Amino acid sequence: MNASLHAETLRRPVPAACLDALRARFGDRLSESSAVREHHGRDESPYPAMLPDAVVFAHTTEEVAEVAKLCNEYRVPLIPYGAGSSLEGHILAIQGGISLDLSQMNKVLAVNAEDLTATVQAGVLRKQLNEEIRDTGLFFPIDPGADASLGGMAATRASGTNAVRYGTMRENVMSLTVVTADGRIVRTAGRARKSSAGYDLTRIFVGSEGTLGIITEVTVRLYPQPEAVSAAVCNFPTLDAAVQSVIEIIQMGVPVARVEFMDAASVRSVNLHSKLSLRETPLLVFEFHGSPAGVQEQAETVQAITADHGGMDFEWAERPEDRSRLWTARHNAYFAGLQLRPGCRASTTDVCVPISRLADCVRDTVEELDRASFPYTIVGHVGDGNFHVLMLLDADSAEEWQESETINHNLVRRAIAADGTCTGEHGVGLHKMQFMAEEHGEDALELMRSLKHAFDPNNILNPGKIVSWQA
Amino acid sequence: MNASLHAETLRRPVPAACLDALRARFGDRLSESSAVREHHGRDESPYPAMLPDAVVFAHTTEEVAEVAKLCNEYRVPLIPYGAGSSLEGHILAIQGGISLDLSQMNKVLAVNAEDLTATVQAGVLRKQLNEEIRDTGLFFPIDPGADASLGGMAATRASGTNAVRYGTMRENVMSLTVVTADGRIVRTAGRARKSSAGYDLTRIFVGSEGTLGIITEVTVRLYPQPEAVSAAVCNFPTLDAAVQSVIEIIQMGVPVARVEFMDAASVRSVNLHSKLSLRETPLLVFEFHGSPAGVQEQAETVQAITADHGGMDFEWAERPEDRSRLWTARHNAYFAGLQLRPGCRASTTDVCVPISRLADCVRDTVEELDRASFPYTIVGHVGDGNFHVLMLLDADSAEEWQESETINHNLVRRAIAADGTCTGEHGVGLHKMQFMAEEHGEDALELMRSLKHAFDPNNILNPGKIVSWQA
Repeated sequence: MNASLHAETLRRPVPAACLDALRARFGDRLSESSAVREHHGRDESPYPAMLPDAVVFAHTTEEVAEVAKLCNEYRVPLIPYGAGSSLEGHILAIQGGISLDLSQMNKVLAVNAEDLTATVQAGVLRKQLNEEIRDTGLFFPIDPGADASLGGMAATRASGTNAVRYGTMRENVMSLTVVTADGRIVRTAGRARKSSAGYDLTRIFVGSEGTLGIITEVTVRLYPQPEAVSAAVCNFPTLDAAVQSVIEIIQMGVPVARVEFMDAASVRSVNLHSKLSLRETPLLVFEFHGSPAGVQEQAETVQAITADHGGMDFEWAERPEDRSRLWTARHNAYFAGLQLRPGCRASTTDVCVPISRLADCVRDTVEELDRASFPYTIVGHVGDGNFHVLMLLDADSAEEWQESETINHNLVRRAIAADGTCTGEHGVGLHKMQFMAEEHGEDALELMRSLKHAFDPNNILNPGKIVSWQA
Repeated sequence: MNASLHAETLRRPVPAACLDALRARFGDRLSESSAVREHHGRDESPYPAMLPDAVVFAHTTEEVAEVAKLCNEYRVPLIPYGAGSSLEGHILAIQGGISLDLSQMNKVLAVNAEDLTATVQAGVLRKQLNEEIRDTGLFFPIDPGADASLGGMAATRASGTNAVRYGTMRENVMSLTVVTADGRIVRTAGRARKSSAGYDLTRIFVGSEGTLGIITEVTVRLYPQPEAVSAAVCNFPTLDAAVQSVIEIIQMGVPVARVEFMDAASVRSVNLHSKLSLRETPLLVFEFHGSPAGVQEQAETVQAITADHGGMDFEWAERPEDRSRLWTARHNAYFAGLQLRPGCRASTTDVCVPISRLADCVRDTVEELDRASFPYTIVGHVGDGNFHVLMLLDADSAEEWQESETINHNLVRRAIAADGTCTGEHGVGLHKMQFMAEEHGEDALELMRSLKHAFDPNNILNPGKIVSWQA
């Protein structure tokens, strides 16, 4: 375990003067209790907690700027915290410092329905946003499963089940308000749908995982709620048949809204966890959005393709509550998977490859996993070439951890060799840093490092993540 | 005229040793002839030519790296040149130096039809790409009008008529090969459809106008050629009626592939130039892509909306050759417009606003233009909130130039006040630099400047563009 933690995990002492100043300014909203620090020093990754020295609960962008100024002055690490749902150790305070909790910045600031945009504070959760805009007839499609904060989703370039149709946070963030390392407040763009006015500051911060600036507000694109929605499950005799179907659907340009793969083990786990009775074979879950005629047309095309590949009849989830049940089950696949081995430690990976390489990549991975000494499940946003492996490890077994790390590395290598990426949507955090040079090459990494040095010259913003400070 | 050229236009002497080294390495492919320098020292902007000291014609990424190394060593400005179709002075050698002509890097390197991607050298023109991939059943949608190079389109974050449906270069560039200021070769990403693996180097270079690195290869997304295509023209009694129709179409989420606005004067100009007989009122040109049923459905929805706003009957361009004629005419609107005042100097502007502000912004602009002492036309990719004004100026009149600059500035101010941008797709070049602080604020500009300093510490890459070197 510790083997994958790198050299930049030395705690930096937080000067008492800095804590005094924060205490004086924030009073009760600065916490040094071990329960609060413990809560902010872990995420959904397999890493043990690494605690910040203190947690500040911010209410405004200006407050965030004040904290940044102080931390910059005292050279204290500053780690933004949203919903804590990251999967790769993003928010662990590996050098100590201040965890900046943005969850109380939870107001939807503006809904510009005519422009199909909304501006929210970073702590707004995605389900909350969709609740608050429901009456406008619009919705925000990006759905990583977890009820993540919009700030965190922007910071990790999140995506999820709807990305095949609506894109990721890369495509759907229009503008950000960001606090820089030295406490200046910058708005990265206006609300025009396109702009050629200089460097793309928005997309510099999207995916930067709190290492270049602290996102305090997010303007996102919204979409009209589709007139018609239908969802269906299709079982396949083999994993390969399912994946080949998806490849053909994408290549034909069918605008499916969702196409999710689950292997037989993950189907079994959601049946147990969500009391469903899905047939326990590899399956695809589809959702179609459009006009009634358009949805029907898409469904017919897709049914013809899946039938060609040995797919069984579609089982339709006609009523909204059936669809909701189905997607809730899919979203709980991670937690459901954990139940397959009670008390286990989970390691979850995430790669993404060009779709022509998806079948090979999944097949080779399954072959390796079938030889492993622990159970696993595979789910995937396969329309994007993106899939996840959940490995269920004996929490006390160093051997199993080591074995899972080897499998993870082999999978990443396979994805990179296929011109893919070591992470399609989870982000780098701590766990994927080891693969950055392999994926990007040293020269590209050096450009990333120079960007980090330019934007955060004192290395206070979530230090030791994404790229190491020194070559 | 000179008033808008800023202080960073001092020519830097090019050391003889640098020219000698380039001459020794490139032989005939280094040109110091005044005709070649003249050709490379101007674009389609209203600026007079500002010549480079020499032009190098590169054939490979490695050659570009060699040139960059030399220029970096001798601190010589290096300006990439594609098709020369930029509109805001992007490629003018305001500090002298080397123009690096990439037009002979014109090979389509790979078409991965199953993945819907193509990789091309930077000098490939967009029409050439579409010719070469026609047999695959795929197409590349981004269409700025001019037959620009893919490298140039990436560098200016180009878009055009199809962006309302397919996005801009921001969304459609998957990966770039870039030569850095010090001559290293970097690939910014793989070909996975999404990635969260670190900073978004691809989008740092998209729109950077040659100031951060030299784009030598571009991997773009392709799309299945639509099963059915139809196009139609719709005339309106007033400009406002046309614009209001578009706003409603977008808000309803109709996936129109193109929706272009032309004012009566631009219709008159294309009638004259392209021998068409369009009714000379404000009009919209639509194109619909999809299945036959889908196209019909879209067209019916749009017809209902335009009729509500006083739009006349659709005139359909049914046959491919009719559509082609129509779009060629639209693409020639710029050159057609010039003919409305033979011998004129043109100044063209480009703003983009949230669609709810489009009608007001266009209306106020027309009101001001109607008082001007020169003719003008307006065309727009209105589905994105983006429109252009072409002002036709007496080439010898300093007063008319000044008047046009004032109108331009007022238009930009109006766009920024509407939370829009000073350029939706033309880019900053020289002409829009003056508005960057107004649009982004000094702190954001300082971030852009720090990025420039980090990526190009000797300020050799297209110096004096986008952001000034010093605050």
